[in-house]
Amino acid sequence: MKDAKLVKRKYRRGLFVGRFQPFHLGHGEAILKLLEDMDEIIVIIGSAQLSHEIDNPFTAGERYMMIRSAFHELKIKPNRYHLLPVPDSPTHAVWVAQIASYAPPFDVVCSNDPLTIRLFKELHVPVVGVPFISRDRLNSTLVRRRMLSGENWCELVPTSVAEEIKKIDGVARVRELAETDSPFGRRDFSKTV
Amino acid sequence: MKDAKLVKRKYRRGLFVGRFQPFHLGHGEAILKLLEDMDEIIVIIGSAQLSHEIDNPFTAGERYMMIRSAFHELKIKPNRYHLLPVPDSPTHAVWVAQIASYAPPFDVVCSNDPLTIRLFKELHVPVVGVPFISRDRLNSTLVRRRMLSGENWCELVPTSVAEEIKKIDGVARVRELAETDSPFGRRDFSKTV
Amino acid sequence: MKDAKLVKRKYRRGLFVGRFQPFHLGHGEAILKLLEDMDEIIVIIGSAQLSHEIDNPFTAGERYMMIRSAFHELKIKPNRYHLLPVPDSPTHAVWVAQIASYAPPFDVVCSNDPLTIRLFKELHVPVVGVPFISRDRLNSTLVRRRMLSGENWCELVPTSVAEEIKKIDGVARVRELAETDSPFGRRDFSKTV
Amino acid sequence: MKDAKLVKRKYRRGLFVGRFQPFHLGHGEAILKLLEDMDEIIVIIGSAQLSHEIDNPFTAGERYMMIRSAFHELKIKPNRYHLLPVPDSPTHAVWVAQIASYAPPFDVVCSNDPLTIRLFKELHVPVVGVPFISRDRLNSTLVRRRMLSGENWCELVPTSVAEEIKKIDGVARVRELAETDSPFGRRDFSKTV
Amino acid sequence: MKDAKLVKRKYRRGLFVGRFQPFHLGHGEAILKLLEDMDEIIVIIGSAQLSHEIDNPFTAGERYMMIRSAFHELKIKPNRYHLLPVPDSPTHAVWVAQIASYAPPFDVVCSNDPLTIRLFKELHVPVVGVPFISRDRLNSTLVRRRMLSGENWCELVPTSVAEEIKKIDGVARVRELAETDSPFGRRDFSKTV
Amino acid sequence: MKDAKLVKRKYRRGLFVGRFQPFHLGHGEAILKLLEDMDEIIVIIGSAQLSHEIDNPFTAGERYMMIRSAFHELKIKPNRYHLLPVPDSPTHAVWVAQIASYAPPFDVVCSNDPLTIRLFKELHVPVVGVPFISRDRLNSTLVRRRMLSGENWCELVPTSVAEEIKKIDGVARVRELAETDSPFGRRDFSKTV
Repeated sequence: MKDAKLVKRKYRRGLFVGRFQPFHLGHGEAILKLLEDMDEIIVIIGSAQLSHEIDNPFTAGERYMMIRSAFHELKIKPNRYHLLPVPDSPTHAVWVAQIASYAPPFDVVCSNDPLTIRLFKELHVPVVGVPFISRDRLNSTLVRRRMLSGENWCELVPTSVAEEIKKIDGVARVRELAETDSPFGRRDFSKTV
Repeated sequence: MKDAKLVKRKYRRGLFVGRFQPFHLGHGEAILKLLEDMDEIIVIIGSAQLSHEIDNPFTAGERYMMIRSAFHELKIKPNRYHLLPVPDSPTHAVWVAQIASYAPPFDVVCSNDPLTIRLFKELHVPVVGVPFISRDRLNSTLVRRRMLSGENWCELVPTSVAEEIKKIDGVARVRELAETDSPFGRRDFSKTV
Repeated sequence: MKDAKLVKRKYRRGLFVGRFQPFHLGHGEAILKLLEDMDEIIVIIGSAQLSHEIDNPFTAGERYMMIRSAFHELKIKPNRYHLLPVPDSPTHAVWVAQIASYAPPFDVVCSNDPLTIRLFKELHVPVVGVPFISRDRLNSTLVRRRMLSGENWCELVPTSVAEEIKKIDGVARVRELAETDSPFGRRDFSKTV
Repeated sequence: MKDAKLVKRKYRRGLFVGRFQPFHLGHGEAILKLLEDMDEIIVIIGSAQLSHEIDNPFTAGERYMMIRSAFHELKIKPNRYHLLPVPDSPTHAVWVAQIASYAPPFDVVCSNDPLTIRLFKELHVPVVGVPFISRDRLNSTLVRRRMLSGENWCELVPTSVAEEIKKIDGVARVRELAETDSPFGRRDFSKTV
Repeated sequence: MKDAKLVKRKYRRGLFVGRFQPFHLGHGEAILKLLEDMDEIIVIIGSAQLSHEIDNPFTAGERYMMIRSAFHELKIKPNRYHLLPVPDSPTHAVWVAQIASYAPPFDVVCSNDPLTIRLFKELHVPVVGVPFISRDRLNSTLVRRRMLSGENWCELVPTSVAEEIKKIDGVARVRELAETDSPFGRRDFSKTV
Repeated sequence: MKDAKLVKRKYRRGLFVGRFQPFHLGHGEAILKLLEDMDEIIVIIGSAQLSHEIDNPFTAGERYMMIRSAFHELKIKPNRYHLLPVPDSPTHAVWVAQIASYAPPFDVVCSNDPLTIRLFKELHVPVVGVPFISRDRLNSTLVRRRMLSGENWCELVPTSVAEEIKKIDGVARVRELAETDSPFGRRDFSKTV
């Protein structure tokens, strides 16, 4: 990575939103690529309030540790990124305003999600695509599925992320969240308790 | 429409709740019919806080403009209707109380929805049915589906509603909200961001 | 008031936010004045969710009826105004976005409140002052105080507003909300119940 | 106390709302008196979600234990009362509806609070006063003040309530909540954290 | 049941969380069994804020009355149980803390739900299983399904629960909540209003 | 500062909560001191959702930038701190659980606030005091007051914090938030809009 001071890049600071349940190699590759065109990247840990759900097993604090370790492993310098948990907003109409109040100023949004793209475009903020590689092979849902089935999930995430997940015994948690004692299949916890 | 002052109608003021995503010809017909039996109608734009969702594409403000234009087109006089956005209540048990605090007093509720009917009946408020015509051909879901498929949706809504939707480029929004960049199909936005 | 169609005014549609607890003659004068410079005015009934508090005695529905009656009395035509209840937003940072999602499009904001002015200016929306007359003699707090003390409050509000307040026995409510059975003075209801 | 089966009382079931921070002898006397006129009393532990505040030091669970012990001491039979925590409602307009959904049916409300009285009267529910004795000497605020100043607070509450408070070291908690390390006096915790 | 004072049981007080929509014979059996090993049981009426939904037809107050009647029928003494409604928590991460603030102290949790088990285990609270009998034949979903289909649901619940449900005309409510006037099948009420 | 790898410190990771409206020299001194006894410090930007209030003028994103710049100026290495915005929790009873879900694991809490100390002690987390110097001369309230009065506030904050505040024209914002157009003094904005 070249020195931030000497390089003239296209954007000053980009915004990248994800849930990172968990952070995988595709995230890492995309962020390295994005950093070629921007001085700094703001990584928002979205849905920060959620955890202990089958689709959202890890807390914001756990995801923060995974990403920070991954960035160290990927040799992304601390002065080139900002890592910030942000809870969901009750409605889409105010989500953009909430993101803007939690984040440092940004001059570009990095997203492939049509809704995110539309919401920022309606506010005239420029949007660039996220250069994911092998999207069908590298995604968080697949990592969680492999954790459940006992397949090799470690090969899909940075080594340091795998280590963080082992520290918190994360695979056991994902499996327990998928179990149920209902005779009709898993009850929706948010309704049950 | 006859003069409100000279006509003796059955009810003073009726309450009609809908999401109007968007307002269509069936809504218009039903309201004209209901106004034969009541001096004034309170039209509640329900789920006012929602927008930019595949089932709730339009904001409360946009829906307000559509309905106001439609009422003008349908020659419903301003002194015969009230048009009020009201957000959802977290629980059904308090929804009726919230509606009552946002709306002028009413002496009848217009609804075909069994839950709405039950909630108001438990409070001893009279309920009349909504005289929808051709319900299977005239409904908001069908309008949105035609917007997606490129079929003729304009014929299902008042001309002025079609114009309001064009002003805000509403069809493009509905289509973008239906797209996804997920390899597993559309992610639930409320979870994703 | 001149015909909206023939007159070329400075703004298309202005936004005016108030709590209107209750609407008084100062509001009326100011809105008439503002309508000289804009085709239409959007009147937001703010803090719509609040009522039955000493500073917020009236429900959104009651305030809506007062203002609608007042506009009729002031001969403001229905096609020149929009009257919309909007609940509070949990934080200032997203309040402007919430207002924008509940209201029709506007090209100017009418306010004397420094915070409102700042929030809209940060989003580059033009702001004009509200031409209140005799602000120290004409304000909602004074109306409520006179209701409590038994002084003449009717002279501060349009005749039709006084009538609406009488219909709902509003003065009795204001007085009861000010009473307390606490030996230490009025307890804060939001804490008490 | 006479047998509920044989006595013909005025009301079937009364509703009594309080915060009980903490329950004191005045509450006990009043409830004994009220039970002469009603078969059963529903005691709502209001503001159930609050605790660890200077005016609301005890959790709902702690207050539940205090009141249950007090009722045992006062020889109020379990089949004559219902003891239910209910959280605050965001607005007064829906509070009554929320109470009604958490509580068994009731045919009278026991309150001296003008707002509570008004809210239930607007729904045509009968209200009776609470026969507090020595209100100026027996109230929760005074109990908490004596806890702070080191005066005899035990004489103001049933013996069993004093015991429950000692079990959880409640006086120490009240004192710590009143302390501050701010140079300007106690900061508002809800703002601080 | 033996006298609580003379028997030395394994636990002082257990916590049991359910929605009880409605309470059935399986709940009753399990609680009797659990009370052999603990002096007292805290029965939490979960999702207390929900009612009038197809999966949550009954209010917290109605469920409270059903369970209290059932315990009387099952001869469970009032000094051996605590019955407390608790609303849902927005996120799993704080749910355990909320339960702890609404309930008396407990030294064991009774649950078969993997998520509940994990959440309490992460806080080092002991958990025991709930000894349900004939889970596939005795569960709340089946009771509601039989109410809908007109089959014999009374045989699945204690007699006193059936009586409470009849008092509030509960079967009619369940059926109305399942109806719809939508041409596409039942609309989601939380979206509709 | 010595190398984190070679030094054996008392704690692995400490938690420090503040609102930092704004971050001042006293914060800086205290954190440097605390870092002598712990490998890493987690700095929580509390009340993250608040901004544009007289006591909370700056957004979470603005405060994040101030603190990050200050840490750079104070030569605190990026691998020794974590900087995380966390919104308020509705009740104290669940606040600690929410903090724990947003933050990496910690083995000590740094606080002088009696309530914070008590909440963590009730969960058996060790607490150490914050070694503030000249608390009466160095605090955020004083900084905001000097901004209002036009006195020298820059000498109370790190140079880089003063620069960040100038970038966003922060003093003008603080002054506008303190103004009012009310004849009775500043209205409470949360009520007004």
